[in-house]
Amino acid sequence: MNDHLSEPGGKVRLFVEAPLAEAAHVQASEAQAHYLLHVMRARAGDRVSLFNGHDGEWLAQIRDVKKSGCAFGCEQQTRTQVDTPDLWLCFAPIKKTPADYLTQKATELGVSVLQPVITRRTIVSRVNTGRMRANAIEASEQSERLSVPEIREPVLLEKLIAAWPTERQLIFCDEAGQAPPLAQVLRGATSAWAVLTGPEGGFDPTEREMIRSKPFVTPVSLGPRILRADTAGLAAVAVWQALAGDWR
Amino acid sequence: MNDHLSEPGGKVRLFVEAPLAEAAHVQASEAQAHYLLHVMRARAGDRVSLFNGHDGEWLAQIRDVKKSGCAFGCEQQTRTQVDTPDLWLCFAPIKKTPADYLTQKATELGVSVLQPVITRRTIVSRVNTGRMRANAIEASEQSERLSVPEIREPVLLEKLIAAWPTERQLIFCDEAGQAPPLAQVLRGATSAWAVLTGPEGGFDPTEREMIRSKPFVTPVSLGPRILRADTAGLAAVAVWQALAGDWR
Repeated sequence: MNDHLSEPGGKVRLFVEAPLAEAAHVQASEAQAHYLLHVMRARAGDRVSLFNGHDGEWLAQIRDVKKSGCAFGCEQQTRTQVDTPDLWLCFAPIKKTPADYLTQKATELGVSVLQPVITRRTIVSRVNTGRMRANAIEASEQSERLSVPEIREPVLLEKLIAAWPTERQLIFCDEAGQAPPLAQVLRGATSAWAVLTGPEGGFDPTEREMIRSKPFVTPVSLGPRILRADTAGLAAVAVWQALAGDWR
Repeated sequence: MNDHLSEPGGKVRLFVEAPLAEAAHVQASEAQAHYLLHVMRARAGDRVSLFNGHDGEWLAQIRDVKKSGCAFGCEQQTRTQVDTPDLWLCFAPIKKTPADYLTQKATELGVSVLQPVITRRTIVSRVNTGRMRANAIEASEQSERLSVPEIREPVLLEKLIAAWPTERQLIFCDEAGQAPPLAQVLRGATSAWAVLTGPEGGFDPTEREMIRSKPFVTPVSLGPRILRADTAGLAAVAVWQALAGDWR
């Protein structure tokens, strides 16, 4: 094994779409090949870690090195698949903080789905979900996740709520109203959950009323200070992981 | 009152150094006067909210408007002083995320002190504490805090630990070792606390051993994924506020 092929956090980890199993042969993407061969100066025989969200983590050898790319040969499983807790983050995109940062942090903290939501006061007109996905993959590789969160296409708030899977609890980070503290709500929680945060200026009163009227919604308070939407979302995810997720 | 003088979150809030009391006269800083008169197009008689970290929040009228500046006349107290919980965030500055973002989020989440720490693997050579302080003031104004976190000058890790006030518990976000979950450690916690996060690549083994040997240190785990240092710090602060701070 070539010891030079490691990043500050350890061996290079790469997400692939292909099935992983003993002796499986996996083609590297163009970007992966470029990174390995030209940035990390890897050579045939060097080893990397691969994961695909289903088959755990595998030690694999770089092979078939050509000018145009390379492939991987799976050698042995180093971790069995463990699912990330089932927590969605539904967020109204905000202008000041690019979705990049939110995607990276939410991936590290361990959400299963990132769902952009368009509300009445949302002023961001376009969400680059391709870029969000690239960020989620990079953060998954670096945080040692065994899966990549699903990045959904933006949806109107009304449609999201109308089509909500009612067995999933929705934590509504409601700055404007009376609500119990998040930690109190989560005590003993076991089901599937989601967190919903609003845009700059919050939800409008009609939206708030509509959201709060649903039986699957739990409004919560995140303390006496007014948090930016992205702070609120990440804080709620962290507290959820600590009390109901895989930080226990 | 002039209704146009409000930001998305409500009335303009400004941090001042001067004492606030009935009929107190307070000079606006140059930046505040510029913002009010030229950005917000305020006029004499418009009202703002003032706070100074000691005397609660006050409704004040803009007066003495000149080309070069303006002043405020305190009218009535709108909130009495409430202290932010006593939580320090001691962090090794990291290169990829500017301290701006960490300062803003930590201020919103409610830390009392931000302490940059220089460790062996710290690669950031300079911390702009003046800029951090400006960011902390802006985040305090916008998050409706009644105080601004103290921004301390960078200190070497060894010095910080050697001079540590031993009655203050130090939460050590230790990615490399066995440690109990944060939520478990915080159950029933009441004393003064601090959170310590490391640089890119973490603390070196000698540093880890030195930190873990201190009786005031509690190593904690933040789950199975590897968090970036800034993610770890903000997540630990959020969980602390939810379980031991003012989100309860």
